[in-house]
Amino acid sequence: MNYFYLVPVASIVALIFAYYFFKRMMKESEGTEKMKTIARHVREGAMSYLKQQYKVVTAVFIVLALLFAVMAFFGLQNNWVPFAFLTGGFFSGLAGFFGMKTATYASARTANAVRRSLNSGLQVAFRSGAVMGLVVVGLALLDISAWYLILDHFVEDADAGHKLVMITTTMLTFGMGASTQALFARVGGGIYTKAADVGADLVGKVEAGIPEDDPRNPATIADNVGDNVGDVAGMGADLYESYCGSILSTAALGASAFIMNPSMQKNAVFAPMIIAAIGVFLSILGVFLVRTKENASVKQLMDSLNRGVNVSAILIAGATFGILYLLGFTNWLGLSFSVIAGLLAGIIIGQGTEYFTSHSYKPTRGIAASAQTGPATVIISGMGTGFISTVVPVVTIVLAIVISYLSAIRFDVQNMISAGNLSMGLYGIAIAAVGMLSTLGITLATDAYGPIADNAGGNAEMSGLEPEVRKRTDALDALGNTTAATGKGFAIGSAALTGLALLASYMEEVRIGMLRLGDDVLELADGDTVEVAKASFVDFMNYFQVTLMNPKVLAGIFLGSMMAFLFCGLTMNAVGRAAQKMVEEVRRQFREIKGIMTGETTPDYARCVAISTKGAQREMLLPSLLAIIIPILTGLIFGVAGVMGLLAGGLGAGFVLAVFMANSGGAWDNAKKYIEEGHLGGKGSEAHKATVVGDTVGDPFKDTSGPSLNILIKLMSMVAIVMAGLTAAWSLL
Amino acid sequence: MNYFYLVPVASIVALIFAYYFFKRMMKESEGTEKMKTIARHVREGAMSYLKQQYKVVTAVFIVLALLFAVMAFFGLQNNWVPFAFLTGGFFSGLAGFFGMKTATYASARTANAVRRSLNSGLQVAFRSGAVMGLVVVGLALLDISAWYLILDHFVEDADAGHKLVMITTTMLTFGMGASTQALFARVGGGIYTKAADVGADLVGKVEAGIPEDDPRNPATIADNVGDNVGDVAGMGADLYESYCGSILSTAALGASAFIMNPSMQKNAVFAPMIIAAIGVFLSILGVFLVRTKENASVKQLMDSLNRGVNVSAILIAGATFGILYLLGFTNWLGLSFSVIAGLLAGIIIGQGTEYFTSHSYKPTRGIAASAQTGPATVIISGMGTGFISTVVPVVTIVLAIVISYLSAIRFDVQNMISAGNLSMGLYGIAIAAVGMLSTLGITLATDAYGPIADNAGGNAEMSGLEPEVRKRTDALDALGNTTAATGKGFAIGSAALTGLALLASYMEEVRIGMLRLGDDVLELADGDTVEVAKASFVDFMNYFQVTLMNPKVLAGIFLGSMMAFLFCGLTMNAVGRAAQKMVEEVRRQFREIKGIMTGETTPDYARCVAISTKGAQREMLLPSLLAIIIPILTGLIFGVAGVMGLLAGGLGAGFVLAVFMANSGGAWDNAKKYIEEGHLGGKGSEAHKATVVGDTVGDPFKDTSGPSLNILIKLMSMVAIVMAGLTAAWSLL
Repeated sequence: MNYFYLVPVASIVALIFAYYFFKRMMKESEGTEKMKTIARHVREGAMSYLKQQYKVVTAVFIVLALLFAVMAFFGLQNNWVPFAFLTGGFFSGLAGFFGMKTATYASARTANAVRRSLNSGLQVAFRSGAVMGLVVVGLALLDISAWYLILDHFVEDADAGHKLVMITTTMLTFGMGASTQALFARVGGGIYTKAADVGADLVGKVEAGIPEDDPRNPATIADNVGDNVGDVAGMGADLYESYCGSILSTAALGASAFIMNPSMQKNAVFAPMIIAAIGVFLSILGVFLVRTKENASVKQLMDSLNRGVNVSAILIAGATFGILYLLGFTNWLGLSFSVIAGLLAGIIIGQGTEYFTSHSYKPTRGIAASAQTGPATVIISGMGTGFISTVVPVVTIVLAIVISYLSAIRFDVQNMISAGNLSMGLYGIAIAAVGMLSTLGITLATDAYGPIADNAGGNAEMSGLEPEVRKRTDALDALGNTTAATGKGFAIGSAALTGLALLASYMEEVRIGMLRLGDDVLELADGDTVEVAKASFVDFMNYFQVTLMNPKVLAGIFLGSMMAFLFCGLTMNAVGRAAQKMVEEVRRQFREIKGIMTGETTPDYARCVAISTKGAQREMLLPSLLAIIIPILTGLIFGVAGVMGLLAGGLGAGFVLAVFMANSGGAWDNAKKYIEEGHLGGKGSEAHKATVVGDTVGDPFKDTSGPSLNILIKLMSMVAIVMAGLTAAWSLL
Repeated sequence: MNYFYLVPVASIVALIFAYYFFKRMMKESEGTEKMKTIARHVREGAMSYLKQQYKVVTAVFIVLALLFAVMAFFGLQNNWVPFAFLTGGFFSGLAGFFGMKTATYASARTANAVRRSLNSGLQVAFRSGAVMGLVVVGLALLDISAWYLILDHFVEDADAGHKLVMITTTMLTFGMGASTQALFARVGGGIYTKAADVGADLVGKVEAGIPEDDPRNPATIADNVGDNVGDVAGMGADLYESYCGSILSTAALGASAFIMNPSMQKNAVFAPMIIAAIGVFLSILGVFLVRTKENASVKQLMDSLNRGVNVSAILIAGATFGILYLLGFTNWLGLSFSVIAGLLAGIIIGQGTEYFTSHSYKPTRGIAASAQTGPATVIISGMGTGFISTVVPVVTIVLAIVISYLSAIRFDVQNMISAGNLSMGLYGIAIAAVGMLSTLGITLATDAYGPIADNAGGNAEMSGLEPEVRKRTDALDALGNTTAATGKGFAIGSAALTGLALLASYMEEVRIGMLRLGDDVLELADGDTVEVAKASFVDFMNYFQVTLMNPKVLAGIFLGSMMAFLFCGLTMNAVGRAAQKMVEEVRRQFREIKGIMTGETTPDYARCVAISTKGAQREMLLPSLLAIIIPILTGLIFGVAGVMGLLAGGLGAGFVLAVFMANSGGAWDNAKKYIEEGHLGGKGSEAHKATVVGDTVGDPFKDTSGPSLNILIKLMSMVAIVMAGLTAAWSLL
């Protein structure tokens, strides 16, 4: 029990440092009056968006909480779930609020600090990003430890082993709150940011011929708001969900795997939390290591960021051995390798993403070269590259699955899927997800850094700062683009591993659901019976016939794959429609408000912000509802087997599709930048115009539909988990 | 046994009518000298391509046949397999050869007949398409009946039930020959056709500003050759594979499902063959029903085609009841509904495809409208539409799976997955695939009609026929575009159902493989043992732990999903590279050969044909090898469970991805045509240019990568099936 208290302590420390970094940032000057005004516009836009989103989210939360309360009333869920659900959502929303507040205060301060020196700018931007990272891990661990203490106090069960199972499966459902919040943040934020971006580009760059971030473009503030909304709040909520999901499902799987070993069970539950807690301390250490010399190149800037991340990762890898040894795992060595497999997988996926999307490498340069034959070949080669790029993350995840499973069962290949080994192996896969996310405090800082640097650049441009300053913010921004790409890869990879962990722990929820409903005995096909409380996962798989020859499973796999594509289609079209509205508004302003182009009049920024906000809120409803309803319907029609098929199909197709979309989008973006740097005819050439088309197509790919799939993968599992009782009680087939 | 002889009879009748239609077409005049010359160019190009391809294919067949011989020597396969493999490939190749020969003879004759009347043109084109349809079904049934008679004579087994299992599982492996041939025909043909098309368009339409099919464009003959290579030979080989695969896997599943019921077992094996045989007669009837009045609109032309297809379909549906009743199935009614479920699914998927790709409906018009804001929004909305369009086919296939399974087991929902019901239900799913393909004789005729009409139009354009004639060929061509779209949907749907049937019969091959290796007993997890010969599919699933919690299955699902994307990426890039070569050649000819643009000199068509041929042959190797090697590797590493995961993942993601690509591509094509008809600014407007970009991107989508996925889905299953013995004998994990 002693070690457990590390978790709330880490949480408090994370929040204290977040506050400290926030305060230090706030001490910086915001610069000139113009800079302040622009920053205020962006801040107000972002906050007005957030306010609007939280209104919608609150309504959805009330409806769902009532639904869960009704389910609890009928014994289909336990009484804690509605409350757990609400706190999960509340803390995730709070993290988004703090993160975005910080980011929007930081952009002008970063631009101003850059006037002093590059290093100062990097410090301001990165430490502001760290606020987001630390708030996310801090609030997540706070929620986890609070619920553990509450449930440990209130849940009554004569059998300590069973009590822990009850606690962890209940806690897992608070992930549903985080998932719902993430859904709206990622999907709504994604639609918002790209509607503004595409709209701004189409009229501004293409029709009016004015550069990016030009203050004469009415949509430019909305575009900057979008960076915060999508890349700070959206990304944060996404990873908050993965973080909670991986820790909680590992805990649930640990409670199940060690149920026959009461002395270890509690430690198996604590292990993921404690690894995460130690990760917090090491992330904070890493943040302090990020600094650079003056006049650093992008590569040197990158090195300094990497130093922070890598030192944290190496230290957590080392610490894991100690943690698992001290917790008394007999196979502490094997489980440590499971954790490290996840940690390494995150890094490899990030590197792979960089290879396929950075214009320092062949693939993206090939896309740029294809621009010489026009936009069509840019699209074809970008998609070809994106499709092929899925190999690296998939093979990495497959290796991570196999290695983390095998080392958790001490490479007992002969009995790989025996009852005992299956639950230990799945615990190994889940804890690999925790490993990947253990350094989230600092990896998320590098992600959130990107939009801050981007906004700082925008602010510098709009307030007409000196070219030297602009050059420095460009350097910071270029770095941000790279971290954004690797960050996306990391987010997808962690979603996939978390999704797997959730898939595994789904069966645990089904067990609890059956027990709650009084189904105490499984009748297996051969006539044997097994007590539900003691049934192994193998027994459950046999009982529910979750095999690949079961048509319900096959139907589920097809539907799951389809969901990934449908979700992409709906979000893509949403961006198209919302961007269309933005285009019309910008055209109207250019037409009706005299003097915008000469700079005499300020455009009506607020109106564009309002259009993006409204568009995002309206457009996100259908995909969001589908993501919640389809798993429920699948369960009601096809039962547990169908749900598992749905989750597996959605995970397989969704993961690969997400990688494809993120990497194609990233590569198009950088192919354009490559030409803008003067290659193949440079800015303004036909080739450049062709890559602008690619970049515009890539916008919803990489920032809306692709990242939304991370959410879909996890949310469908979460919905299945909270509905497990209902599915166990009733299905048509 | 008496009914069986319907199968060879149907086969001979099909071939006789094919010959009859061919002879009648050859009696038509080829028109003017110019028309003859152009037709000869196309014919020679197509044949030189085919010759080159068959060289490569022969080499691959020799290597694989040797490999299978070695496997047979070591007892990992039986001795018949190398020969069965070769005939499967040979007959498929022969069908492609006849079909393409006919198509290339028919195009000028169609153009010339159109000069007489529209109806004459339709007759010539459609009946030439019917040659392909009838040759495919005729040769497939010939191969099937010959092998059945040979094996029935030579296979020795005391137990009649076991003998039939041996025969059917052996016959199934000849599908591997058809698959390998289809791989090269579809992938090679797909790359060929789009390299030529994209190359011709990029330089001709975009740079030189000359219309499609202009004889001054050096790539125009290659483009017309490509239509034959891709849409006739490629489509034919694809459906030949589905046709054989569905019949043979149904036979294998029938032999297994009825092994305890010797009096019915043979009839269960014959049932799919006899349904196919009756389908042949009804298809021929349908072909004769296709005729139209003069000056028919496209809609009326469509109606006359539909009349032929629908009458065949309705009659086969009715006949099925009789066939299954006469064969003595106690559940003849239920199984008939399984067949009809498949038949209906094919029609619904075709209709859905038409809705999403025809510019008579909202989705494609929406894409056209988005062209007003440039090419980027065309791409975004086209992809969005394509993503969303996956809903119809997936839901249809899911319903077909569930309905055909349930009605095969008389809606015994309570024991849906019991040992007996599982094998009956899977037989129901397989026979649904046979139902979908039962009218292939005529549906393939409508597919092959498309490129013939297209080439006729090309011929009319190049030989400068009167505008009135051009208008009529345009009407025939427009009809061809619609049948091409529905045909594509049908090909994908049948690939998915066939893939499912193959997945189910894979386990049957594993059983035979184990028996051959002397593994006579399965030791189940609970310590029970079951004889392999008598083990149910449920026992096998339990033994190999093919559940969704098995990490090997999960790894397989990820890898299968990835394979679909990787395959698409490789084929997309192949088109990009090969098109690039074509662009360079066309530019060179424009530059170096004086007088092309004024029409004084003929361009060097042959050189462009050679470039496309060479490009296709080179580029298809890597994706083809991967499609064969990955299932083998997965089996060697992850065993039976991993292979099934791979197949299920590949099937789920591959099917959805194929639909997405085909529908996006089709919709872009028709959005362009919609604008060309005078909407939104018409030809030459900015909006039109934007849709040309969409169309060019759509070319490899709908004609290369998308259709190639049909092959991948089936080929991976086929490889798994022939390697089942090896996988059963050895796997790393």
